[in-house]
Amino acid sequence: MNQEQLTATERTQIKRMAKRGNYERQVIYDILDEALVCHVGFIVDNQPFVIPTAYGRVEDQLYIHGSPASRMLRSLLSGIEVCVTVTLLDGLVLARSAFHHSMNYRSVVIFGTATLIQEAEQKLEALRAFTEHVVPGRWEEVRQPNSQELQGTLVLSLPLTEASAKVRTGMPMDDEADYSLPVWAGVLPLQLVAGEAMSDDKQRVYDDSHLQSKIEIPNYLYNYTRI
Amino acid sequence: MNQEQLTATERTQIKRMAKRGNYERQVIYDILDEALVCHVGFIVDNQPFVIPTAYGRVEDQLYIHGSPASRMLRSLLSGIEVCVTVTLLDGLVLARSAFHHSMNYRSVVIFGTATLIQEAEQKLEALRAFTEHVVPGRWEEVRQPNSQELQGTLVLSLPLTEASAKVRTGMPMDDEADYSLPVWAGVLPLQLVAGEAMSDDKQRVYDDSHLQSKIEIPNYLYNYTRI
Repeated sequence: MNQEQLTATERTQIKRMAKRGNYERQVIYDILDEALVCHVGFIVDNQPFVIPTAYGRVEDQLYIHGSPASRMLRSLLSGIEVCVTVTLLDGLVLARSAFHHSMNYRSVVIFGTATLIQEAEQKLEALRAFTEHVVPGRWEEVRQPNSQELQGTLVLSLPLTEASAKVRTGMPMDDEADYSLPVWAGVLPLQLVAGEAMSDDKQRVYDDSHLQSKIEIPNYLYNYTRI
Repeated sequence: MNQEQLTATERTQIKRMAKRGNYERQVIYDILDEALVCHVGFIVDNQPFVIPTAYGRVEDQLYIHGSPASRMLRSLLSGIEVCVTVTLLDGLVLARSAFHHSMNYRSVVIFGTATLIQEAEQKLEALRAFTEHVVPGRWEEVRQPNSQELQGTLVLSLPLTEASAKVRTGMPMDDEADYSLPVWAGVLPLQLVAGEAMSDDKQRVYDDSHLQSKIEIPNYLYNYTRI
């Protein structure tokens, strides 16, 4: 799955993408909106760090957030170069030879420098994007951030200016001679799937008769899917 | 999910882990063996790069591989510092307040420098580890690398000496007052799940009567699971 080992098909695909900027932009949006976690790469004292974190997207801005105590956020605040990578694994590509085994995936790599969001309204918009990115509809149901929480959260914005997508789809590309080997070849699709929601039993909501009332699992958690 | 925003429970957990080195070692192995993709962070000309790639583990060595044309591998060959991160997303943690939303995850971060594997036997062992990591049992069934393929593959080894694991499990940690809000809270578990295997129809295997024979989907692709 090393991204630089490209088959002829992929090279054609990428060249075609380069020609169609708008198409690639949409591919980038789709990947960012489907995935849940990004990997943030940055440098401190000549040492690379790669930290997984949640994110949100609003148009051409990727938002990440965290505590002011976070080393990652404090480092990024100084305006250093950052590389944010988002990867979706779509399947195992099982070839007839070990050499041509691969993976189907979609990934986005973003380069740039992050900016601190200081304006309260934009900060709130970013926090809304985090929650809505994970579970659409959730933001309106939960207690929204108070001023203390807003102040206690750093939100950084990274523009999607220098962003590119890479995609591998389809069947294995075996050596010509290997197609007659009696070895099964194909693709095993993979997908991130939600299980059954587990309720927190620490709820303390009482009805009029002072009996603890049960809050039903919201509808959006049944058949939850990322695509 | 930013790893540096730790709850009291997590801090206790990590302190406990630090005390139990062997336990953490097993957690690291389990995460590396379950996940399929790592994110490799490295620096070229003061620019951080984060590239997703497949990997294999043999004892305390993590192997990555690719074409000699790969910029990533060529960079790592020079002995520069690398940070490899592996993340498993286990669930969405839905709190009563937007602020306390989080994710359950397990991640490993490895620092070090990579070494080129030159000895043919170790290289083959690493390539075997890649295939077996993805689908146990697959290596023995497929055409194994010939000398040309072996020469055309760079394999790098990264020791797990400086490796650490971080884990978040369990329910949301809400503010005391929020437990009486009439908002559902809990965890939505997430898991990478395999779909139905799709056979490559380019097979050219003929039986004695010169009719094309069909190769059955191997048993190990039914109920394929990473855990």
